[in-house]
Amino acid sequence: MLLLQLNPRVPTSAFRQICEQIVKQIEDGVLRPGDRLPPTRVLARTIGVHRSTVVRAYEEIHALGYLESRSGGYTTVRRRPRPPSTTAREATKETPLVDWRAAATRRALHVHELGMATAPRAGDGVIDFDRAAADPALAPSDDLRRCVREVLLRGRGAALDYADPAGWPPLREVISRRLRTHGVKVGADEILITSGAQQGLDLVLRMLVREGERVIVEAPTYGAAHALLRLHGAKAVEIPVRDDGMDLEALERAISRARPRLVYTMPTFHNPTGITTSQDHRERLLALCERGRVPIVEDGFEEEMKYFGKAVLPVKAIDAPGVVLYVGGFAKVVFPGLRVGWIAAPREAIAILTSIQHASCLAGNTVAQAAMERFCRDGEFEAYLRRVHRVYRRRMQLLLQSLDDHVPQSVTWTRPAGGYTVWLTLPWTFDREAACVDHLARAGVKVAAGRRFFARPPRHAHIRLSIACVGEDQIQEGCRRLGRILEPMLVSNVES
Amino acid sequence: MLLLQLNPRVPTSAFRQICEQIVKQIEDGVLRPGDRLPPTRVLARTIGVHRSTVVRAYEEIHALGYLESRSGGYTTVRRRPRPPSTTAREATKETPLVDWRAAATRRALHVHELGMATAPRAGDGVIDFDRAAADPALAPSDDLRRCVREVLLRGRGAALDYADPAGWPPLREVISRRLRTHGVKVGADEILITSGAQQGLDLVLRMLVREGERVIVEAPTYGAAHALLRLHGAKAVEIPVRDDGMDLEALERAISRARPRLVYTMPTFHNPTGITTSQDHRERLLALCERGRVPIVEDGFEEEMKYFGKAVLPVKAIDAPGVVLYVGGFAKVVFPGLRVGWIAAPREAIAILTSIQHASCLAGNTVAQAAMERFCRDGEFEAYLRRVHRVYRRRMQLLLQSLDDHVPQSVTWTRPAGGYTVWLTLPWTFDREAACVDHLARAGVKVAAGRRFFARPPRHAHIRLSIACVGEDQIQEGCRRLGRILEPMLVSNVES
Repeated sequence: MLLLQLNPRVPTSAFRQICEQIVKQIEDGVLRPGDRLPPTRVLARTIGVHRSTVVRAYEEIHALGYLESRSGGYTTVRRRPRPPSTTAREATKETPLVDWRAAATRRALHVHELGMATAPRAGDGVIDFDRAAADPALAPSDDLRRCVREVLLRGRGAALDYADPAGWPPLREVISRRLRTHGVKVGADEILITSGAQQGLDLVLRMLVREGERVIVEAPTYGAAHALLRLHGAKAVEIPVRDDGMDLEALERAISRARPRLVYTMPTFHNPTGITTSQDHRERLLALCERGRVPIVEDGFEEEMKYFGKAVLPVKAIDAPGVVLYVGGFAKVVFPGLRVGWIAAPREAIAILTSIQHASCLAGNTVAQAAMERFCRDGEFEAYLRRVHRVYRRRMQLLLQSLDDHVPQSVTWTRPAGGYTVWLTLPWTFDREAACVDHLARAGVKVAAGRRFFARPPRHAHIRLSIACVGEDQIQEGCRRLGRILEPMLVSNVES
Repeated sequence: MLLLQLNPRVPTSAFRQICEQIVKQIEDGVLRPGDRLPPTRVLARTIGVHRSTVVRAYEEIHALGYLESRSGGYTTVRRRPRPPSTTAREATKETPLVDWRAAATRRALHVHELGMATAPRAGDGVIDFDRAAADPALAPSDDLRRCVREVLLRGRGAALDYADPAGWPPLREVISRRLRTHGVKVGADEILITSGAQQGLDLVLRMLVREGERVIVEAPTYGAAHALLRLHGAKAVEIPVRDDGMDLEALERAISRARPRLVYTMPTFHNPTGITTSQDHRERLLALCERGRVPIVEDGFEEEMKYFGKAVLPVKAIDAPGVVLYVGGFAKVVFPGLRVGWIAAPREAIAILTSIQHASCLAGNTVAQAAMERFCRDGEFEAYLRRVHRVYRRRMQLLLQSLDDHVPQSVTWTRPAGGYTVWLTLPWTFDREAACVDHLARAGVKVAAGRRFFARPPRHAHIRLSIACVGEDQIQEGCRRLGRILEPMLVSNVES
């Protein structure tokens, strides 16, 4: 006996509800092999839907192998396929046949055990100094909606089809033009569109690094870069960051001793310290890598977020001999969910990277790339940048001022000219860092622990503050609480 | 002297045109360090734009480091940064410092040299039996536009922000429900959303396979799977495909001898042969892999494309002990450009795969995932499937009929119950395959050479015909030309 109950208040269609309920009753053994289903006309009348809906539902369930048609027009429940093999039945949920942790490669497990911070949005009332990606509250979603609409209306076929593995050609043009205004002269054929800067880094590592090989990174550096290095089984060689970026003497020694496959650097609004290196530092860094013939991977992901002072050209802008792979992305600035980034590099490198991208995912998201192109081309991106620059400039000024006002002088911090992050060095050894971060969390202030940005525990305790998603009143209140919590800890530090 | 010329007919804004032209003139040395720019008021009047546009442009160029402000309100061209280091200047385009081919890993070069088929749409007049992804002409782009619009209107923040690394939760629910109707009982937490099925395969290989390890594949199999195996440095162990799928005796021997990390199979509408294996074959395959404790990667990417006969349940549906990782995607059915796929697997495997996805790209495209969820939930996907099933069923019938009508009997082919592809075996050894494909191309018929689907050259010559993007009249005409070209080749074959 078939009993169906349609619920008009759920968003599921009548068709789907009929399919799901009949399949469930077969699965649960309520309907048994050989049972007849009611004629479509009868069922349609009983549950109050058009007969064609029932016909379609029967067809669907039939196609799934649950039903068979009998002569005379009857539809009956089909004999179910044979039960699985003996071995299968012996295994239970408790003793799986494959132990996936044991089956996984060491690299995969290594990255899994890292437990990358997912940085969910902090709950209500929590002051979120942790998140360092574009504030969704500032997103120009109306502009994006218009861009997507135009792309789907005009592009029709093309925008819904596979993209070129190297990316949507007009977007490559737009990015080439944008990079030119940053002094980076690359043609559209020297640009590969990626699904975000992170995937760009992944592609570069796939091209250059074998398991067990060494990669030079700043200490501290972007935490998710460490996760990627683990995924590749690469060894991080950490070079300390001084006031003007990587310690170049340490870098020189590391290049000659470690035989690194590449140097990963973020010279502008460095994450987590916020430091921007000088033109002089960039030239010396480039010269060292040229001499050692070591590729530089320049992460320019917050390049656009400049608030104070003069611009410094990217290392890529002075890279005449082509040793720099520049990785950029939009996500830190606008629309993280669209996942659009790029690599600017010599043609030969772009060709190999494109083959890797093609093999690993066929191509990126065409709609997102085409929409981003419109967004840049029509001037919305410029307008958006001007607007958020004002917001972030005020937030950064306020954060630095509030730190001055509330945090004791034995704590030191950087004074960034752009980006989102300020780096605090606490006058303690590393082992007291976690307790401090916990303390702050209990006081409703979420910060990033310094540990996330190193491969090995550093000497000092650090915290990173980000202005990406905090309002101005939250910045002041957050610094007040920060001072209130650090003060007594500093006293006890002196005492101990 | 500054000369600007605004072109009102290009889509670039006046602001951007001013920026680009001034930067270019500085770069080209037309404007030199110390040169004064005209007062904003004067320039605005001269070129006929609002003064604020010129002010913004000066600000922008200033921020890029090209200008400096002098007392008295003048703006002058700034001294350019120092030229790059000596080493850099010595290197020229002809003698790059880094040889990227030499720097690349063997795996990266290997995949690059494969020169994966990009399968661009064939030109006008060419009958395209090559392409095997959803026909863009059938895409319900209006429905998609509505879905994206609603996602951006209602979701606001969330839809533009990073997705959960495991995927948009409502889409995981929807896919869990869809899989249930295919007999696969997995919860939403046993599903990981990927950027297409190809990226799903990549994640699985990243989890399970180290360089040099062995993977069992069907011979022939999906060409892009071979590219992925190369990228991972994995060795393909090829098992011949018979009328009912993989030769299970050969599989049994390979499992015990090769110690493979996984078995990759496409039991339904197999690409390229179109074969669907029987329930019995699936159960024996599963039992063999259970006994050897070898994970099965089941590629179900055309599962939805069923035209004739009874449905067979996926291997995953009878996988009680959890040795099957099921990889699926929408791209072969609808909207290739959105790149949305999934993996259904035991929770423990999903957790590790999610960590890998998180490290490699942070997350997938939120807008695409949310739009796909609406598209499935609101019934548009069902309606679309019904519509294209009718189209493809007719095309498949017509292709099989036209082959019967026009192609000599010494050529044999499969008779698929779904999917897009029919596999022809030519009565020649492999070495004559390329000539035959070229012959066809010259006659305006594009087909896929069989070679693409094997790791090592097979014994026979094959071609794959796909109905994905050919109209009905093209199918008939294509088979006519096919017959016309094969006939004399067959005669010369007998003679030789």
